Amino acid sequence: MTLKVYSDRMSQPSRAILIFCKVNGIDFEEIKVDLSKRQHQTPEFKEINPLGQVPAIVDGRFKLFESHAILIYLACVYPGVPDHWYPADLFRRAKINSVLDWHHSNLRVGAAKYVLYTVLGPALGIQPNPQAAAEAEKILSSSLSKLETIWLKGKGQYLLGGLQPSIADLSLVCEIMQLEVLDEKDRIRILGPYKKVQQWIESTKSATSPHFDEVHKILFKAKARFQERQSKLPSKM
Amino acid sequence: MTLKVYSDRMSQPSRAILIFCKVNGIDFEEIKVDLSKRQHQTPEFKEINPLGQVPAIVDGRFKLFESHAILIYLACVYPGVPDHWYPADLFRRAKINSVLDWHHSNLRVGAAKYVLYTVLGPALGIQPNPQAAAEAEKILSSSLSKLETIWLKGKGQYLLGGLQPSIADLSLVCEIMQLEVLDEKDRIRILGPYKKVQQWIESTKSATSPHFDEVHKILFKAKARFQERQSKLPSKM
Repeated sequence: MTLKVYSDRMSQPSRAILIFCKVNGIDFEEIKVDLSKRQHQTPEFKEINPLGQVPAIVDGRFKLFESHAILIYLACVYPGVPDHWYPADLFRRAKINSVLDWHHSNLRVGAAKYVLYTVLGPALGIQPNPQAAAEAEKILSSSLSKLETIWLKGKGQYLLGGLQPSIADLSLVCEIMQLEVLDEKDRIRILGPYKKVQQWIESTKSATSPHFDEVHKILFKAKARFQERQSKLPSKM
Repeated sequence: MTLKVYSDRMSQPSRAILIFCKVNGIDFEEIKVDLSKRQHQTPEFKEINPLGQVPAIVDGRFKLFESHAILIYLACVYPGVPDHWYPADLFRRAKINSVLDWHHSNLRVGAAKYVLYTVLGPALGIQPNPQAAAEAEKILSSSLSKLETIWLKGKGQYLLGGLQPSIADLSLVCEIMQLEVLDEKDRIRILGPYKKVQQWIESTKSATSPHFDEVHKILFKAKARFQERQSKLPSKM
């Protein structure tokens, strides 16, 4: 039975799973769970993931959710996935686990909440919340600074000084890509100071080409929609 | 060289590491990093963990931080750690990773923030914040409900229906133990409805006895201090 990946490409962890499967030639069926139509909250989807979140996978009789757990599972179970994605060496693996854990309470909180309280929320009928956006930006900037000075310190162009990408690179870069839906001036203001981060994003894109761009197309379409909506709002005098 | 564990027993992930080492007979040196004295922000400690957080370990020349990554590392590297803590079976391991990932953005956010904005903050000179506490309580209650109905569903008394505890049981129970510093009426109001959760806490305590209680002693002392401070405040009319 083919692996089933339940996902919505607007979700950054969903994109990480899809790109990982495509890059590594894992045969899978992409099943769209449309978040904007709240399909993740249907009883049918809750049979797959009782938490009602994407991504989730079904591999034969085995169900799994939480994107980092899924990436680790796929890297360990599917033959032919190159070692650099999640090295068998326990020391390198431990360091990758450390970055993945850090991601949850730092970069993820900052990026996801900033996008929600500025651009995405209004598109979903949630009022913009400038105070919450400002707090999220603080966490986001602090996280980008730590990426630049701590996690990207080292010889290689990837996290932890790696010469090839790991699942942590893919997961975190997909998170940062969510900022593409922002107004260009906001995106540049936030990302501009972090040159190593920018270079790392390009390296990860390039290492996972052409799948990275293909899976991210949806974001640029969404951005165009958000901008169109914005331009129709009455301008402030 | 002995494993060094940099920790403060007031920190719930620090306690999980200490208990894990003690239960599994891992020889280690406990090095206190006093959070109330901001020792985690000193240049000396940032040589160990540049993120300035506990717990962190140094094992020979190898440095590691983030508690879940540390628990996984110790379970995999130290001989003699029983398999149930982090099973070699990739399917069981994947499910444990899934709970550990879920913990970050759910139970941890709810419990840690609720305690901070009610009891712990004022003790650290931070004003109580009833609105933030109410938001945290919502996340905490939702997390406890998911523990009760999803993660503790199954035959065994541990997470994922396990018959013996895993590192996820230890990590999450240590998180919930932080609620011990609350006023008794608040703790009972929050935990009261969740009978399976309460039973699971007792099972985990018992499986890690006497180390669990010994490492948690500090919480009960802290609670007494918080209550004494509270009783000295001018009462509201």
